[in-house]
Amino acid sequence: MYNTEIINNLKYRLQDILTDKKVETDVDILDKYSCDETSDLRFMPDLLVRAESVEDVRNTLKICNELNVSVTPRGAGTGVTGGSVPVSGGVILSTEKMNRILEIDRDNMIAVVEPGVITFDLQQKALHEGLMYPPDPASLETCSIGGNVAENAGGPKAVKYGITKDYILGLEIVLADGTVVNTGGRTVKNVTGYNLTGIILGSEGTLAVITKIYLRLIPSPAASRDILIPFNSIERAVEAVTSILKHRIIPATIEFMEKDAIDLVSKHMDGTIPYADAGAHLLIQVDGQSDDEVYSLINRISVAVDIVQEKILVADSISQSNRIWKARRSIREAIVKTSPIFLAEDCVVPRAVIHFFLKSLKEFFILKGLYSVMFGHAGDGNVHIDVLKKDMEYSEWKKLLPDLKKQIYRRAIDLGGTITGEHGVGYLRKDYLTMALSAEEIALQQRIKKAFDPKSILNPGKIFPFSSEA
Amino acid sequence: MYNTEIINNLKYRLQDILTDKKVETDVDILDKYSCDETSDLRFMPDLLVRAESVEDVRNTLKICNELNVSVTPRGAGTGVTGGSVPVSGGVILSTEKMNRILEIDRDNMIAVVEPGVITFDLQQKALHEGLMYPPDPASLETCSIGGNVAENAGGPKAVKYGITKDYILGLEIVLADGTVVNTGGRTVKNVTGYNLTGIILGSEGTLAVITKIYLRLIPSPAASRDILIPFNSIERAVEAVTSILKHRIIPATIEFMEKDAIDLVSKHMDGTIPYADAGAHLLIQVDGQSDDEVYSLINRISVAVDIVQEKILVADSISQSNRIWKARRSIREAIVKTSPIFLAEDCVVPRAVIHFFLKSLKEFFILKGLYSVMFGHAGDGNVHIDVLKKDMEYSEWKKLLPDLKKQIYRRAIDLGGTITGEHGVGYLRKDYLTMALSAEEIALQQRIKKAFDPKSILNPGKIFPFSSEA
Repeated sequence: MYNTEIINNLKYRLQDILTDKKVETDVDILDKYSCDETSDLRFMPDLLVRAESVEDVRNTLKICNELNVSVTPRGAGTGVTGGSVPVSGGVILSTEKMNRILEIDRDNMIAVVEPGVITFDLQQKALHEGLMYPPDPASLETCSIGGNVAENAGGPKAVKYGITKDYILGLEIVLADGTVVNTGGRTVKNVTGYNLTGIILGSEGTLAVITKIYLRLIPSPAASRDILIPFNSIERAVEAVTSILKHRIIPATIEFMEKDAIDLVSKHMDGTIPYADAGAHLLIQVDGQSDDEVYSLINRISVAVDIVQEKILVADSISQSNRIWKARRSIREAIVKTSPIFLAEDCVVPRAVIHFFLKSLKEFFILKGLYSVMFGHAGDGNVHIDVLKKDMEYSEWKKLLPDLKKQIYRRAIDLGGTITGEHGVGYLRKDYLTMALSAEEIALQQRIKKAFDPKSILNPGKIFPFSSEA
Repeated sequence: MYNTEIINNLKYRLQDILTDKKVETDVDILDKYSCDETSDLRFMPDLLVRAESVEDVRNTLKICNELNVSVTPRGAGTGVTGGSVPVSGGVILSTEKMNRILEIDRDNMIAVVEPGVITFDLQQKALHEGLMYPPDPASLETCSIGGNVAENAGGPKAVKYGITKDYILGLEIVLADGTVVNTGGRTVKNVTGYNLTGIILGSEGTLAVITKIYLRLIPSPAASRDILIPFNSIERAVEAVTSILKHRIIPATIEFMEKDAIDLVSKHMDGTIPYADAGAHLLIQVDGQSDDEVYSLINRISVAVDIVQEKILVADSISQSNRIWKARRSIREAIVKTSPIFLAEDCVVPRAVIHFFLKSLKEFFILKGLYSVMFGHAGDGNVHIDVLKKDMEYSEWKKLLPDLKKQIYRRAIDLGGTITGEHGVGYLRKDYLTMALSAEEIALQQRIKKAFDPKSILNPGKIFPFSSEA
């Protein structure tokens, strides 16, 4: 997208200040940074910078801003909406090498980390101190905490513990022109000036590059237990969720799988999935400070779902817990195996109407002859809707997608929900933002974008349906 | 501050569109809107608008923006930093009449309310449905939820339940030019575009006027119990807090009072305060879903604080709970009675260093011959520091204040904290913002201000040490 002269000039200037080893131009390596985990999306960057410090980030941004070259920040590249894909070429600015856990302060229950830390590593290190960092996106073991902040990542544990934004106390960020800004700090309460941490959360790398993160930790639960409950139908499963919460029980997770998801995984797992013939599954984890507390919760859940309950499988060993979770965790694998190209949506609706949403979608998909699989977070209304291309012609599939997305988003919005609960808008959904937000709302967001990045060099082509120069 | 011609023109235009009864010009009534609960601060508005709908807010802002007249939004006027005091005159825009609870959705555990709803009323209505809205600022029974959002209000329950921002899912706001904007919505997860809800939280009426609020509720605890623990010193009390949390116990509140606070309240309450001779008190509330759970927590707290504990008073009736809380709740009353003019600061520091902060301050105050009282939220590091004028000459007091504030803020910042934990910057602290934030950080915040309110008509003279035109 940029001419050779600009890129060469940029390369020399970056190499000069960052040293050669941090500035990558090898095409084979650049190719690895041309995509994230989004199905069927690839754009080549012109250069890759692997920053090792805030100074590296600062220098890279300063030079790129001066030369008007776009910068796409990248954590671990596990996003699924093209957020870290360089759709306008330019520089990929990776924070993967900034991966130190700088501090775990046990007394104040705070962690200070660099953005490239793998979320799972932070969790393990915290656990070692008796502490917990709860947010648990599916990509936990490979995603980075910086990416989690940029996407305001969710996960199954949102029902009890909330999402990324509930744990971020402060940030060090670098603006497009290289200015280093600190937001928030080491305390839970802080109302000194605007809540800039709040606006960075979920801004998908379009406002600033995150270089340091202050996180709140909580005491880890001493006991937990997983249970699987089969239901005849998704309606019954959703009713059970409402009933559990009405009984003042908040499990750590309440995941669901509808019939087609169960069937697909059952096939994939050669029939070893429990209750393979059920119409829906709820996969519930309860936790607490003692086994007694956990068992009392399980008993109370049994009472709460009694009217619809047929069986409950309570895992009483780690291997049984793994067996219970394996089905839920294998869904994507089963989908990719069945159809490498698929549409993955993650709409959110108020929790008590999930079944209306699913039924309406399923009817529509069947009418169109499409095969779909739905699963996700029943506790917070966040539904994963995967539609599989299977053996449809690629051109026909591509032609179908815009209307397919619109039909899905329209139903979510009509039920009081929105188009994305945890994956973000990124590149994939930007043309549909107008379905969820008014022109005035988008204009306000673009004015905020300008306040951070007046030349629009940071992650262009994401979130907004039209250029922020508009 | 405005000439009569402008104000008359404004008055006629507002009366014309809003009807006379919503536009107030009576000086005696305006006088009541010239202050909030800040000690020693008063500025007269030129006009008062009592909005009854989003349309009223929209029309008021549109006209004021056109005529360049400043608008100070006001909830219940219970702030303590002059946030709702019209320091540049102009219009006070009160949302006190927009006080309807529009919806409590029990199944989805969501409330939809207008900004003028009194926080306590919302809590009671939620409780009636078995649900809880946890944030509990001291002014709970008189403050409004709109003001809580504007200030991102805290309270004792922050240690377990978090603060206002942790419960706000979405907002309807009106920008300075009258544009209505919706942020977030009815779901816990929502990453569709920027987190505008996040930036409005704590923006102190400088970015937009809040006209509707979507809140997350949680199941209410079925049981709770209050306990009072006396300590020889504040160090021992802070050590006990660290120990409790390290034992994986998170009480609903952990409040503290240091010796001078205990002494003052003891005098005020004629010696009826328990453990009046202690060096410090911790006032702890534990809650849970059963009496058993609550008693088990109390037992675990006893174990956790064993090494320093002398006595524990466990309230076993509501009247005893009230007795325990009365001392903590009477502090301000005792202060005002002793000295109607006083400095009230609410710095925040990492929880484990509260005692360093207090000791350093106390030494400084004593050196200066000042009488101070300190108390607050030991669970989250938010310390209330009240310095009493007593019989000092008013002019001497006024001369003393700037250095006094600087000395307090400097110590909080040096310990890794900040200048305000829950009260906000408002008018009182704006000249000290540069102690906590860099020039670049303030400039960024002012660019954000401009994105919302290009003519700077909304609550001018607040937060920023210099005009946002700078």
